[in-house]
Amino acid sequence: MNATTKNILAEKVMHWCDQLAAISSHPDNISRFYLTPEHKRCNTQVAEWMQAAGMNTWVDAAGNLCGRYDAATENAKTLLLASHLDSIPNAGAYDGILGVLIAIAAVEQLHEQNIHLPFAIEIIGFGDEEGTRFGSTLLGSRAVAGTWNPDWWELKDRAGISVRQAFIDFGLQPDLIHTAARRTDDILAYLEVHIEQGPVLEDENLALGIVTAIAGARRFSIEVQGYAGHAGTVPMPMRKDALVGAALGVVLVENIAKEFNVVATVGQIECGPGAVNVIPGRAKFSIDIRSGDDQLRDQALAKIQSKFSLICMQRNLMATWKEIHNAPAVACAEWIQKLQANVLIDMNLPAYKLMSGAGHDAMAMADICDVAMYFVRCKGGVSHHPDESVTVEDVALAIDALSNTLQKLTH
Amino acid sequence: MNATTKNILAEKVMHWCDQLAAISSHPDNISRFYLTPEHKRCNTQVAEWMQAAGMNTWVDAAGNLCGRYDAATENAKTLLLASHLDSIPNAGAYDGILGVLIAIAAVEQLHEQNIHLPFAIEIIGFGDEEGTRFGSTLLGSRAVAGTWNPDWWELKDRAGISVRQAFIDFGLQPDLIHTAARRTDDILAYLEVHIEQGPVLEDENLALGIVTAIAGARRFSIEVQGYAGHAGTVPMPMRKDALVGAALGVVLVENIAKEFNVVATVGQIECGPGAVNVIPGRAKFSIDIRSGDDQLRDQALAKIQSKFSLICMQRNLMATWKEIHNAPAVACAEWIQKLQANVLIDMNLPAYKLMSGAGHDAMAMADICDVAMYFVRCKGGVSHHPDESVTVEDVALAIDALSNTLQKLTH
Repeated sequence: MNATTKNILAEKVMHWCDQLAAISSHPDNISRFYLTPEHKRCNTQVAEWMQAAGMNTWVDAAGNLCGRYDAATENAKTLLLASHLDSIPNAGAYDGILGVLIAIAAVEQLHEQNIHLPFAIEIIGFGDEEGTRFGSTLLGSRAVAGTWNPDWWELKDRAGISVRQAFIDFGLQPDLIHTAARRTDDILAYLEVHIEQGPVLEDENLALGIVTAIAGARRFSIEVQGYAGHAGTVPMPMRKDALVGAALGVVLVENIAKEFNVVATVGQIECGPGAVNVIPGRAKFSIDIRSGDDQLRDQALAKIQSKFSLICMQRNLMATWKEIHNAPAVACAEWIQKLQANVLIDMNLPAYKLMSGAGHDAMAMADICDVAMYFVRCKGGVSHHPDESVTVEDVALAIDALSNTLQKLTH
Repeated sequence: MNATTKNILAEKVMHWCDQLAAISSHPDNISRFYLTPEHKRCNTQVAEWMQAAGMNTWVDAAGNLCGRYDAATENAKTLLLASHLDSIPNAGAYDGILGVLIAIAAVEQLHEQNIHLPFAIEIIGFGDEEGTRFGSTLLGSRAVAGTWNPDWWELKDRAGISVRQAFIDFGLQPDLIHTAARRTDDILAYLEVHIEQGPVLEDENLALGIVTAIAGARRFSIEVQGYAGHAGTVPMPMRKDALVGAALGVVLVENIAKEFNVVATVGQIECGPGAVNVIPGRAKFSIDIRSGDDQLRDQALAKIQSKFSLICMQRNLMATWKEIHNAPAVACAEWIQKLQANVLIDMNLPAYKLMSGAGHDAMAMADICDVAMYFVRCKGGVSHHPDESVTVEDVALAIDALSNTLQKLTH
């Protein structure tokens, strides 16, 4: 396939992204949530494109759209190519979507040349990754991984509709959820293309990257108790200002994250009573800390905790830590990373490797098979925002890299 | 007067405080606001006590309760003894109140001995110092100082009632507000007794203190603009985290306040977008900075501003400062401070001097006459809270100090 053909295919993918962007519950922005009428319209549209690419399609018991392109032989294993079709509110046009559509483009190339590989390909457009509607993420891929949690049936959206009811309204049977689960034995591997959602590839001037691991994240809510007082009448040395303690914590988080080469973020802070003329008697802040290496992350965390506890002791403050999230890192399979590296080198691209700080469906799928991911450069590292942007050239390279990976997997 | 008599009088003042505490718009706490039925009941009750102390009483054109104890001679000047009768919501029993009632107790002593001094004494119970109802403070004393701002007529309470309407509902005539203003020529001085509202006297193990100045306060709202990003995907060195910038500002405010021996407080902070997994793209915090010395305060402020601007520059952040309050410091009259020092020394008490970090009616009165204040120790430095507490022994000493000051003023 020559460069022009490749660009035509990439243009087609870009056009598909635009078409899906119009399937939204909001007239002015992209908002497409799990088990909604927009989800159904999106599945129908993407299924048409899958069928045109020579695939048989169906919606599984969790509402995920599936398309199968048969292997050259019977009883072959299946390679899963997937990402998600749902979005956050006021989303960009590429997060999730792009990975599904690039996979369809790659299969379409095979179909046009009537090539069937020694393995089947199934593309899955997961119905829920973002967790926007029910507050719990990865519902689609968890169902496919067979790790659906029965507690989720009672999760409710803002309108009070439960997951169970939403299944029924969508035409699904909650009792059949187990049928969405795939068998480990049948799967060759899981491969996902996704926009980077960060600025690293752009900074390195690269179109594509190979993901080494999906960071394990831990999240905490930290409450600091001091003593409130009048901003005019309590001399500085007599204060127990909870906010100054918290502020030292915020600075500490940054310093130690840099020292350990992990990422850590304070995204939320508040203090009370919260008046301009009252010394804060209490403060509360969050910490989100991630690394591709759980041990390194926990070492950094331990240092933050011990240093912060010293700060609090010196200032007569009491800190209470509450863990609100703990997900281990997920490593991408070494053998697929090597294969991806060869693909990029053959394309005269650097085999640049990077960690994914964001969560992806691949995390859920790692429970049942080897996983791997390609990242595609996105403008300014922006995602979860209408400004999300990718170039047609980068999309062409991503399609090419995926096609070449399929070829290499046959050997 | 012997120690027992003094304590009986102090017990009486404590009992009066309890009685006023029961005059509240809230069944479970002390909440007494300007121009409300509780204000009227409070005025009526305090007027009775003033009358029993030999005073003529009236309510002035601003709703302040006034009581006059005549001088020994005609055409004598008038010493004003005052504080406020209103409270914040869920208040303590002594802030403001105690100063008015100690003044009544001091006059009652004169009356019982049928002593009239070479100056008249007028006690004023200001109707509004806290500004709870209409959001603007010192309305009572501003009226007496002749600095009533006509804009205030249109200030509204939460129910939408304007100051003008509240005046009419209270039985006052807005057009007569100018008659509340006193003439500078007629006033000997203004003297106010008030709880300290801070922990300094308790820390020094002292019942009473002489106020040197009421701090000038400046307040700012500072907005920091950075760049939001995904908490997992943006490496630490590539971030423009507005909250880390703000946190460095909070720590800076404390450090520089200590260095310059002023008080400075960040009482409010927030950041946006405010999600646990998003790098804050913006942050906002307040600064309240005070000193008895305006120049020193402004020097400290200038250093905070220049150092913070450096921090922002280094981090590619933009900071915007907005001044929301600027009140100059008010010095207490040197000659009255000297006289107060002699009074305390004669009582075998240290003549301890301290600044008032909080605002008081004396600030408004300083526009038309010399002002002075005594501070009374309060437990734990707590005020604006139901836990506000003073001892009967300290109140006895305060009555004594005030009586002795009246005696000294005659010489």
